[in-house]
Amino acid sequence: MARIEPRILKGFRDYLPEVMIPRTRLLRRIVEVFERYGFDPLDTPSLEYAEILLGKAGPEAEKLFYRFEDQGGRDVALRYELTISLARVVAQYRNDLSRPFKRYQMGPVWRAESPARGRFREFWQCDVDIVGTDSLLADAECIAVDYSVMRALNVPNYVIRFNNRKLFRGLQARIGVSDNAVMDAVMRGIDKFDKVGEAGVRAELTGQVGNGGFTAAGLELVFEFLKLAEGNLATAARIEKLASFLKGSELGERGCAELREVYDNATALGVPDEVLRVDPTIVRGLDYYTGTVFETFLLDLPGFGSVMSGGRYDGLIGLFAGEEIPAVGISVGIDRLISALEELKLLPKARSTAAVLVTVFAPETQGYSLKATSALRKAGVPTELYLDTKAKLGKQLKYAGKRGFPLVVIAGPEEEKEGVVSLRNMATGEQSRIPFSQLVQAVQDNYVDPDPGVATGRSWDWEFRADMIDRVPPVGGVYLLRNGNHEVLKCGWATFGNLPDAIRESVSGEQRAEVKAFDWYEVRDDRLSQMLADFMNEKLNPKFGKA
Amino acid sequence: MARIEPRILKGFRDYLPEVMIPRTRLLRRIVEVFERYGFDPLDTPSLEYAEILLGKAGPEAEKLFYRFEDQGGRDVALRYELTISLARVVAQYRNDLSRPFKRYQMGPVWRAESPARGRFREFWQCDVDIVGTDSLLADAECIAVDYSVMRALNVPNYVIRFNNRKLFRGLQARIGVSDNAVMDAVMRGIDKFDKVGEAGVRAELTGQVGNGGFTAAGLELVFEFLKLAEGNLATAARIEKLASFLKGSELGERGCAELREVYDNATALGVPDEVLRVDPTIVRGLDYYTGTVFETFLLDLPGFGSVMSGGRYDGLIGLFAGEEIPAVGISVGIDRLISALEELKLLPKARSTAAVLVTVFAPETQGYSLKATSALRKAGVPTELYLDTKAKLGKQLKYAGKRGFPLVVIAGPEEEKEGVVSLRNMATGEQSRIPFSQLVQAVQDNYVDPDPGVATGRSWDWEFRADMIDRVPPVGGVYLLRNGNHEVLKCGWATFGNLPDAIRESVSGEQRAEVKAFDWYEVRDDRLSQMLADFMNEKLNPKFGKA
Repeated sequence: MARIEPRILKGFRDYLPEVMIPRTRLLRRIVEVFERYGFDPLDTPSLEYAEILLGKAGPEAEKLFYRFEDQGGRDVALRYELTISLARVVAQYRNDLSRPFKRYQMGPVWRAESPARGRFREFWQCDVDIVGTDSLLADAECIAVDYSVMRALNVPNYVIRFNNRKLFRGLQARIGVSDNAVMDAVMRGIDKFDKVGEAGVRAELTGQVGNGGFTAAGLELVFEFLKLAEGNLATAARIEKLASFLKGSELGERGCAELREVYDNATALGVPDEVLRVDPTIVRGLDYYTGTVFETFLLDLPGFGSVMSGGRYDGLIGLFAGEEIPAVGISVGIDRLISALEELKLLPKARSTAAVLVTVFAPETQGYSLKATSALRKAGVPTELYLDTKAKLGKQLKYAGKRGFPLVVIAGPEEEKEGVVSLRNMATGEQSRIPFSQLVQAVQDNYVDPDPGVATGRSWDWEFRADMIDRVPPVGGVYLLRNGNHEVLKCGWATFGNLPDAIRESVSGEQRAEVKAFDWYEVRDDRLSQMLADFMNEKLNPKFGKA
Repeated sequence: MARIEPRILKGFRDYLPEVMIPRTRLLRRIVEVFERYGFDPLDTPSLEYAEILLGKAGPEAEKLFYRFEDQGGRDVALRYELTISLARVVAQYRNDLSRPFKRYQMGPVWRAESPARGRFREFWQCDVDIVGTDSLLADAECIAVDYSVMRALNVPNYVIRFNNRKLFRGLQARIGVSDNAVMDAVMRGIDKFDKVGEAGVRAELTGQVGNGGFTAAGLELVFEFLKLAEGNLATAARIEKLASFLKGSELGERGCAELREVYDNATALGVPDEVLRVDPTIVRGLDYYTGTVFETFLLDLPGFGSVMSGGRYDGLIGLFAGEEIPAVGISVGIDRLISALEELKLLPKARSTAAVLVTVFAPETQGYSLKATSALRKAGVPTELYLDTKAKLGKQLKYAGKRGFPLVVIAGPEEEKEGVVSLRNMATGEQSRIPFSQLVQAVQDNYVDPDPGVATGRSWDWEFRADMIDRVPPVGGVYLLRNGNHEVLKCGWATFGNLPDAIRESVSGEQRAEVKAFDWYEVRDDRLSQMLADFMNEKLNPKFGKA
């Protein structure tokens, strides 16, 4: 038989483990945020009637659908995005779903676009949407989700730039453009501000002067409007400037009132003022947005574009229901975000999920190795067993190095006779003999969980680097700081939500240098946390004194 | 514009939140097991060259592919299963991937089958495979994964029935069938044993008598062979009976030796003897299996079929590499398993992921509600904010009931003035006023996390029902048993892996009735667990005495 050449389609890609491991961890954290905000998971078919999926897509988008006739002669297509299926679900199950309907959905979508750097024909979307309410609280919730996702992923230095599409209708009135198509062209020009700068936008808009009431004076007014956002002003003052510029336009004034309300609600929901910025250059390319729009930019990657965006779109979700259904949503550009974090060296790489490789010294001691493997896994330690019982130990250690396992267990005949195992730290090459019964503890003492996610963990070989504390989730509980010999330097506790901050602020100055590791334990009871910390302070005599 | 009717394709389905919530939780637990066994995640495109995906599929399967020509005139198809793409990946990245390559993959596959109850045209597969080793340790690892998944999902009363395809070659020699195609037909008949019983199989095999050396005496020998597995025998003795029946056939004897080795390794890896059963009627329909095969049956659902299956297939993975690459794997029938758990009433239903609804009493107190929402979310409590500030409280409570939120926060003007909130338990209708600063604690005191997953949790209103303890993951740590007034009855600790068992065995007899709740905290340090338990026993004076 002729060998078939292994290849994949242009514009598609495989996610090998090295990429998939951090990706999976990121998605898990994003799901955790979505659920913390009360969004429930939904899944819909990848394949639907083309008639449904095409929805309001224009002829340009239509060309990009993977569309074909199925075995039953039906005109079907792969989904191009997730929102149109949400619109179908809302119409189809209208009697079963509560309103508002808050759902998150994550999954692949397909577009037959020309492949380019960072652009694929199959890629994931991660959306949350709130359907069925025009309350601006919902817009603020989406911005708060944005903030919480960035926080959960420990993204530093970013800004959520937000705007309201109604402002452009106010601007249209102010500059006297009578033709909506011309205003749309003006907005498409403004949308490129980030990419092409003022000069680029000016060149593009100049081409529209003379059309549909757009004058050279109007062009100058556009730039006057766009510049209202510049400089160091408080958000309220910034909105005030926009409002006074648009005075007299009902839609413009309404847009500004909405901006104000969304801003107030977002900050009341805990979004810090410093990550929010009203910005009249934010348009959002897609033309179905009707009110609030927002995009998220990484300050350390200028020109990279938005990694999380969304807005209010009151005209789309009702498409199949035959009525107008208001909606607001946000989409995480997961693959863009991963690229960005990679570029910023903020993505913890991992060649394997396992913490330990258990080697098999010889066929005779295989049973002892299996016993060690089983004990580690039972205790929740991700453990790989070396499978070739005939391979030399050197080969097994080389494999461990290649796969990036931090620890290796050696359980040879000598070890078995003495009831011990050898534990090798692959980073330092140190190897120590440990009674079998203490194996799990020794692994825990030497292993840093790269993705503690929830509830408990230990960070070993921590040189008080901020990013180690960043891995601690915002829970309540107790913590212990230790030196290189596992001795306790300090214990303390934190109320719900405050554990990372408490650890971060627990020592300062010269004490920091001595801290080499910390343990932390989520306790879902503040009274108990306090009591445990008191106990530990009393019994362990921490070197730095009682907290 | 004419309204488009909202509908989905025949054989496809939407997963609404009520189904998606437990499904997501199950998948999360399965991933946790896969990673604990050192499998790394992989993802591959849904759409590939038809030439690749068709692989070794016969003409029957070929008809079921969703296959079409893409915009570039390429002959493409949606994947039918995940293994063929694994074969492609192994060939394509041969220089980058270590051997053995252990990966898990979860995702949808598409088959244009006639829809039937429980059979869909788009469904998920969850596979783990170990590629590149013929070590029988790998076969045992797959069986151990099977066991650990069942355990992680708290499935009671099941059996993993395993066999080795080489036994059938031994049987073929024993009954003198010269034509492999006839033996294949005999095996296909045996494969139906579970569905149609002995009489059904006999009827089918009788039709083959006279073909390719298959005699009436041979037919009787087949049933003699199949019955060797009956009765109450230890596994070793059972294998011994099969081996002596197949004596003289090299392949038959080798198959029995492999059965023995796989069984020994699986038990050494911690799989309890009582869930393992050698069974010569296990064939596995797919014909690419070459050695070990196994299926998992729920004893409480006879006739339901296997929920997790797999085996060794040494001929498929090398398809694109141009060499033979041994492989063994296991696949979780996630949707079948969910149906089964539903039928057994073992699937915790959930109408929402959120624990609390924060109501908005009036527009004036909206800020106070937002503050409560933010505080709860910051502490990690999944919280939904009611979004319509104009809705009456009664309507909001009705909504909470419909959505199944266990707790509701009421933060009206009176509450705000006094710096308290009202917390309403939706199950009992009880409502209590709580200082704002104690809101998070009060929610934790009254909320049972339905999916603690890892590391910490509290089970409230627990009447010492076994299924509540089953939710505790197998970690180490400390626990507290409490009565209805939160008073501590007993404290204790458990070494790594043993927390659920320790809680289960902590009280007995008449003490049980008094226990109404328990807290548990994972501690990744046995020394610390012991110390904490000592402290708690000393300070809290547990009513039942010291552990």
